[in-house]
Amino acid sequence: MPGRDRRNAGEDRRGGAVGADAASGPRGPLGAVEGPVDLRALPAALLPEFAEEIRTFLVDTVTRTGGHLGSNLGMVELTIALHRVFDSPRDVVLFDTGHQAYVHKLLTGRRREFATLRQRGGLSGYPSAAESPHDRIENSHASTALSYADGLARAFSLRGTTDRRVVAVIGDGALTGGLAWEALNNLGAGPQRPVVVVLNDNGRSYDPTVGALGRHLAGLRAGAGRASSVFAELGLGYLGPVDGHDIAAVEDALRRAVRWRRPVVVHCVTRKGKGFPPAEADEADCLHAVGPAAPAATRASAAEPPSWTSVFGQELRAIGAERPDVVCLTAAMLRPTGLLPFAETYPDRVIDVGLAEQHAVAGAAGLAMGGLHPVVAVYATFLNRAFDQVLMDVALHRLPVTFVLDRAGVTGPDGASHHGMWDLSLLALVPGLRLAAPRDAGTLRELLREAVAVDSGPTAVRFPKGTTGPDVPARYRRGRCDVLLDPPDPDVLLVAVGPLAPACLAAAAELRRQGIAATVVDPRWVHPLDPSLLELAAAHRLVITVEDNTGTGGVGARLAQAAAGEQGAPRVRCLALPGEFLPHGGRGELLDEHGLTASAIAAAVRQHLPAIRLAEPGTVLAERSVP
Amino acid sequence: MPGRDRRNAGEDRRGGAVGADAASGPRGPLGAVEGPVDLRALPAALLPEFAEEIRTFLVDTVTRTGGHLGSNLGMVELTIALHRVFDSPRDVVLFDTGHQAYVHKLLTGRRREFATLRQRGGLSGYPSAAESPHDRIENSHASTALSYADGLARAFSLRGTTDRRVVAVIGDGALTGGLAWEALNNLGAGPQRPVVVVLNDNGRSYDPTVGALGRHLAGLRAGAGRASSVFAELGLGYLGPVDGHDIAAVEDALRRAVRWRRPVVVHCVTRKGKGFPPAEADEADCLHAVGPAAPAATRASAAEPPSWTSVFGQELRAIGAERPDVVCLTAAMLRPTGLLPFAETYPDRVIDVGLAEQHAVAGAAGLAMGGLHPVVAVYATFLNRAFDQVLMDVALHRLPVTFVLDRAGVTGPDGASHHGMWDLSLLALVPGLRLAAPRDAGTLRELLREAVAVDSGPTAVRFPKGTTGPDVPARYRRGRCDVLLDPPDPDVLLVAVGPLAPACLAAAAELRRQGIAATVVDPRWVHPLDPSLLELAAAHRLVITVEDNTGTGGVGARLAQAAAGEQGAPRVRCLALPGEFLPHGGRGELLDEHGLTASAIAAAVRQHLPAIRLAEPGTVLAERSVP
Repeated sequence: MPGRDRRNAGEDRRGGAVGADAASGPRGPLGAVEGPVDLRALPAALLPEFAEEIRTFLVDTVTRTGGHLGSNLGMVELTIALHRVFDSPRDVVLFDTGHQAYVHKLLTGRRREFATLRQRGGLSGYPSAAESPHDRIENSHASTALSYADGLARAFSLRGTTDRRVVAVIGDGALTGGLAWEALNNLGAGPQRPVVVVLNDNGRSYDPTVGALGRHLAGLRAGAGRASSVFAELGLGYLGPVDGHDIAAVEDALRRAVRWRRPVVVHCVTRKGKGFPPAEADEADCLHAVGPAAPAATRASAAEPPSWTSVFGQELRAIGAERPDVVCLTAAMLRPTGLLPFAETYPDRVIDVGLAEQHAVAGAAGLAMGGLHPVVAVYATFLNRAFDQVLMDVALHRLPVTFVLDRAGVTGPDGASHHGMWDLSLLALVPGLRLAAPRDAGTLRELLREAVAVDSGPTAVRFPKGTTGPDVPARYRRGRCDVLLDPPDPDVLLVAVGPLAPACLAAAAELRRQGIAATVVDPRWVHPLDPSLLELAAAHRLVITVEDNTGTGGVGARLAQAAAGEQGAPRVRCLALPGEFLPHGGRGELLDEHGLTASAIAAAVRQHLPAIRLAEPGTVLAERSVP
Repeated sequence: MPGRDRRNAGEDRRGGAVGADAASGPRGPLGAVEGPVDLRALPAALLPEFAEEIRTFLVDTVTRTGGHLGSNLGMVELTIALHRVFDSPRDVVLFDTGHQAYVHKLLTGRRREFATLRQRGGLSGYPSAAESPHDRIENSHASTALSYADGLARAFSLRGTTDRRVVAVIGDGALTGGLAWEALNNLGAGPQRPVVVVLNDNGRSYDPTVGALGRHLAGLRAGAGRASSVFAELGLGYLGPVDGHDIAAVEDALRRAVRWRRPVVVHCVTRKGKGFPPAEADEADCLHAVGPAAPAATRASAAEPPSWTSVFGQELRAIGAERPDVVCLTAAMLRPTGLLPFAETYPDRVIDVGLAEQHAVAGAAGLAMGGLHPVVAVYATFLNRAFDQVLMDVALHRLPVTFVLDRAGVTGPDGASHHGMWDLSLLALVPGLRLAAPRDAGTLRELLREAVAVDSGPTAVRFPKGTTGPDVPARYRRGRCDVLLDPPDPDVLLVAVGPLAPACLAAAAELRRQGIAATVVDPRWVHPLDPSLLELAAAHRLVITVEDNTGTGGVGARLAQAAAGEQGAPRVRCLALPGEFLPHGGRGELLDEHGLTASAIAAAVRQHLPAIRLAEPGTVLAERSVP
């Protein structure tokens, strides 16, 4: 199964650490399990030892490579039981929010690839059909698995396939997402199809699961009202609660669920971080994810420059002191989105709505109608789920809501469904919305303040994953834009969107050494396009736009469109991400691959400048006067 | 309150039919009720007569103007009770899916404007803050009201306002939408805020409400398990069921709910179309909406050309006969989306998922994984709600799902939240998705078949509301494009997107009389752009694109972007809808207002052609040879 990756050359996947790892290999049963068939052959008495071996393997490997640790430590016994009861891939096991599928990967023949986890060309941190026929859902957005299960079970039924079971594994946090409700409403209605919903209830997503459902599940965990679960009210079977770390108990519950021949929820109680004391003791999020370092060094050291997230979080707390009307919303990601400092200082003014981006946005509309200024902090990729609410609930009513989009652009090791590469285009479709892209910590603070000061209509601020660099000074401000470099008689204008400013400045330096003069401008507010940016563009023959977003509908596209209709307007070339899904890899690697580096920017200028110089000898100014 | 419309000149709103209507005016209490205060002063004994008077007024007016009839006939007593118990606008009454707010409009001083309902500059068919301070939610997408209510109640609480109540009126159909679940999960959790959820349960949206929730509500209606509703499991209070046509009973229940001082669901059972025999007898959808005609003529006459919807529906049934793997999904809109012929012939192959666009799309992904070819039929504006599922669940997995977008472009009288004016831009962001825009009935049939024949990755077909015209013949096909007109030595290329082809041909005819030769091309597949379209564009000096979509990120924008970087490329001007919310009005009126008519297209050509002729005297061919 390994090596079938359609997107990446698989050649380097067995090199270096991988080989070494395989050589020193597991000493217990793990070394003998190459797939579910081997697992099912293991005597039940060996399973506890096997589970411990997997746990040790996960801690050893993931603390080295980085990756999702806490959730997978909680999934060890559950996954073993799943693969002993069901016959994957004939039976289809679907993992919601796929970062809980590491054990599944281990049990389906990918142990040797773990040393390459989340690296360019290496093992994906999520299920990947390219890696294995055991993997189906590559999307890591939450709350989807029950819908896939409903569709797959309907397809099997329509095609007369009666002997394939469908299993969806979903966390309690993901059940707070509305899509899961829509699916339960469909699963619970007749005709009945055999779908097993494994509810992996660890009482939390990143944070403890909030809301009425969390309380309801806690009641079920405590043994109250087994006969009266919300699932039963909706017509699904309910089995549990089961200790999710007791393999025999889980196997027994799964087998019973199968015999019901209709949708059944098997409520498994697990512990996030189980068996690894630093994870169990981590109050923040049970070591939900760790960086590629030793376990003790999972926090940023003091010497590192601050992350974009932390700059946002600190500034928002400062704004909170001045603006009592500012309230914050998060969809179950208080810490990852940087809201913790604000929450510690103003606990009453932070709302965690659960894994429910739609409600975060529509609820923010209600808060704004009530006279407050909500700040919705969300990863860029997850705002896609609330596009309709941004458009219809916030923008149509011209409500002052500020969206703060972390992880905008290439994010790196989390892969295709985590890159925030559509937000610039998507938000430009929203009438009245103003969108800012800071280039450094200083402009992040400044633009956040400008955004929160807008009192009619939505605003958004987008920034990438990672650490900020040194602040990039402006020569002067022109309209809303910062001119970063303005040589006399420029040959080209580089439009540097947000954090690509340093690359553009470096490209300009390289070009200067080659006798080409480049103006560099940071638009700051990237939508709507500022008139001063259009004026500046019109004063150049060639404009190169550089943005960490898909090429369609972004800053360059809109500038090109404005220019394309005007005689004498500059030529505009857009450097951006391609209109395709990008695999996982380092942020720097992916930016490099897609031409968003200083040298690639300089090369694009050198490529396009000659044709323009040729076509417009001495006539530039005259032609520019034509409207 | 009338006349405060921010978007439309209100001058004509009291003219003509309105004045006449007011003059002949109501003879009972209705004539004396100018607002909720007057309503509360009415003796309870008069209320049944008052309700009947309102019902008669609605039938008389709405069957003349067109509009939503069935749902409002079911809301008469409920709305009276609401405005007697609550003190709007101090108490905030929020209407989900605002077309059920006609009675609310009548009771809040807008009786005299009803003759202008849904007309350009007239009364909106939905709540409108511009019309009245009693109106809040202008968005008519479903399932939002509980989120607004949660946000508003939190805002009141945070601001120390303790004497304003928040009421959300939501239908049973809308409760199947995931956003409502996300809101219930928040409302049901402490701390408790006084929110009254009025569940207007008529057992249907357009069609009978499907799924587990519908069955659960039916059980509650039958009196089973009052103590064990799904709402109670989620920590909300539950009162009911109450006869929603018994004003005293509803008033009593609402007053009791207020005394609970926490979120309470008041389950009101109503009858859609109540009191109007043709609506009560209408099996299709209880006269959900009627056209501006006499009640007996609510079906299209045989002489009319077929609607886009019916052409799609007939062709899909024909495809169904040949392709047993084709299955259809609808989000509670089987008839409006044209799926009825298919459903009548292949009842097992149509799935109504409830008002749940997200699940329709993610469920379709599951069906496609199971080897079927799902067709998701949805209004263009509602697909916005499932953008993340189109992107992540369908496209990322390269699954063959066909989206059929009815009501694309300007829809007309349903206003800002019904215009399907973002789909062209939105879907162009989805990697691997292919999007078609038919120009007539013939190309709709053809493109639908081409879309369903694609076996990897999503496809979409978009068409407008209304009736098709005569088929528009092509001179020849070039690549995937149809060239509709190809004069020798053309001055301009008109790119006609979908149903704007006739306007472009008429513009070309007008231009020919003025000595300007225009090529007209219909791209058919509007995303990705076909190489043949780019070649054709490169052979012209001026390109005018014409599309019924927002100007950002659409066909013209992408063509302009492709052209902007090339020396010698044509000038590209994009004629499209503006990047703002459009009010209600006739489709023709709005297209006219935004320059999407033959005369406006011809005028745009005349405006831009001279500058190009001036700038490129005799050098056109030479310059074109530069790559």
